[in-house]
Amino acid sequence: MGLLIVGSVAYDKIETPFGKTDRILGGAGTFIGLAASLLNVENGIVSVVGGDFKPEFLDLLKDNGTDITGIEVIEDGKTFFWEGKYHLDMNTRDTLATEVNVLEEWSPVVPESWKSPSILMLGNLHPMVQMSVLGQISKPELVILDTMNFWMNTAWDEVLEVISRVDVLTINDEEARQLSREFSLRKAASVILEMGPKVLIIKKGEHGALLFSKDEVFFAPALPLEEVFDPTGAGDTFAGGFAAYLAKTHDFSFENMKRAIIYGSAMASFTVEKFGTERLVELTRDELAERIKVFKRLTQFEMPT
Amino acid sequence: MGLLIVGSVAYDKIETPFGKTDRILGGAGTFIGLAASLLNVENGIVSVVGGDFKPEFLDLLKDNGTDITGIEVIEDGKTFFWEGKYHLDMNTRDTLATEVNVLEEWSPVVPESWKSPSILMLGNLHPMVQMSVLGQISKPELVILDTMNFWMNTAWDEVLEVISRVDVLTINDEEARQLSREFSLRKAASVILEMGPKVLIIKKGEHGALLFSKDEVFFAPALPLEEVFDPTGAGDTFAGGFAAYLAKTHDFSFENMKRAIIYGSAMASFTVEKFGTERLVELTRDELAERIKVFKRLTQFEMPT
Repeated sequence: MGLLIVGSVAYDKIETPFGKTDRILGGAGTFIGLAASLLNVENGIVSVVGGDFKPEFLDLLKDNGTDITGIEVIEDGKTFFWEGKYHLDMNTRDTLATEVNVLEEWSPVVPESWKSPSILMLGNLHPMVQMSVLGQISKPELVILDTMNFWMNTAWDEVLEVISRVDVLTINDEEARQLSREFSLRKAASVILEMGPKVLIIKKGEHGALLFSKDEVFFAPALPLEEVFDPTGAGDTFAGGFAAYLAKTHDFSFENMKRAIIYGSAMASFTVEKFGTERLVELTRDELAERIKVFKRLTQFEMPT
Repeated sequence: MGLLIVGSVAYDKIETPFGKTDRILGGAGTFIGLAASLLNVENGIVSVVGGDFKPEFLDLLKDNGTDITGIEVIEDGKTFFWEGKYHLDMNTRDTLATEVNVLEEWSPVVPESWKSPSILMLGNLHPMVQMSVLGQISKPELVILDTMNFWMNTAWDEVLEVISRVDVLTINDEEARQLSREFSLRKAASVILEMGPKVLIIKKGEHGALLFSKDEVFFAPALPLEEVFDPTGAGDTFAGGFAAYLAKTHDFSFENMKRAIIYGSAMASFTVEKFGTERLVELTRDELAERIKVFKRLTQFEMPT
């Protein structure tokens, strides 16, 4: 397995200033899988859904190139559901409903043939679930972890333990401050890199992302867009694009991680153009290549020495 | 005159989480002049101070390389004074006092020999003052304007008029939204570029700056710092570094403006390291060259095609 993904496959219901949806396909695992498939990276998702989950959504993932044999279906259970409403600035959202459902009692089981992945991407889930997966697989070349403030508030020790066991951690700026108890992101990064990870990615939403190693720092901007239609899944697409680019290139140097973070940013800039997975599903490799060039023009300069 | 600067020369009193000052040297004109002198650009300031203004502050500007013959001293007047307090996040500040004093009734007089500058930088002042200066000089190669929400709220029509007469406008993100009545910065830029300027710079503080022309966009990040000690003057240093680099290179292409904005960002990253002008005054060209390299490493990547 090139990229083993552990993350939610879920229903989202979204309202933005531009419209609203019924229950649509969502979940961190979904966006990461779609991003990986777009880069032609062999990938499979370990997750769980309920009997209410539409088979066509599983087919969509499969048709795009994701192995779904690791997605358990609990026939008498209900799929994880999130409902949210975004405001005009798109940086703030109200969660209207969160129904954990089948994820509540879930113990992930990694299929036997997937136990030696090249890269393991642990999407945002309870740290004990993430740890359980880490215990089932052997010697991945790279482990990438996403987590969030919710787990820091409710399972602090477990969050610290899982963080200590991964290579790359992705969190947002507020979470980096909470985790490190430092306000300056530069200082926060130093503290967090002492906790275990060799690389830290701090996501700043519309303000881009910072990539830190012990000795280096790189900044990738978000693309200034005419319109952000729906931010749902942008962070997961970003992480998925990052992980997939590394899985595709098998080069875990800081220089290559720079490229990976630009790929993640470019993919995320598409996700926000339509509701949920809509834009990512129809995205072509040519469109992506074109957008990578836009990022180059946006950031590159020549300086005479 | 290479760079003619019109802007406040003032007293600031600052409190940050790291300490507080007495009345120290401040003002947009001051920071812009110091930035220009650092790049060895011939520069002079048109401004006004009161009889209470310490001669050593005028000497400091002069010794650094700024022509101060355009700074009027009104012996029985008092110098513009601003007092402010920053909070931990350094993005919000409380203004504790603003005493406009001699700036209130000021009519700028541009010295005869300065009336054909290469570049005119209109620092943040009443738009009628900015317009008066525009009326006194002939055919500058480039006019750069800084303004702010205060003037939009109190002198909307005058702000629009002065904006219509300049080449480059610098404002922050909230001001761009107010001026354009568009939320998306990309849309805001399109609207504002219809108002007259050929180039728009949107300053986003710790989140960097965007440079827009009709067809192009460039993003310069702010340097992630261990500590922001005092943000006062960072925006003016940024604008000053930008203007000075253009004055030095005499190349007003978009490609060169990219370099100019990186120079501005690099200089501003020093200003915030100490109170007021302290760090800028002691800054060496070698330190600046080194920081430009840091910006290169922070943003540049190679992408195989």
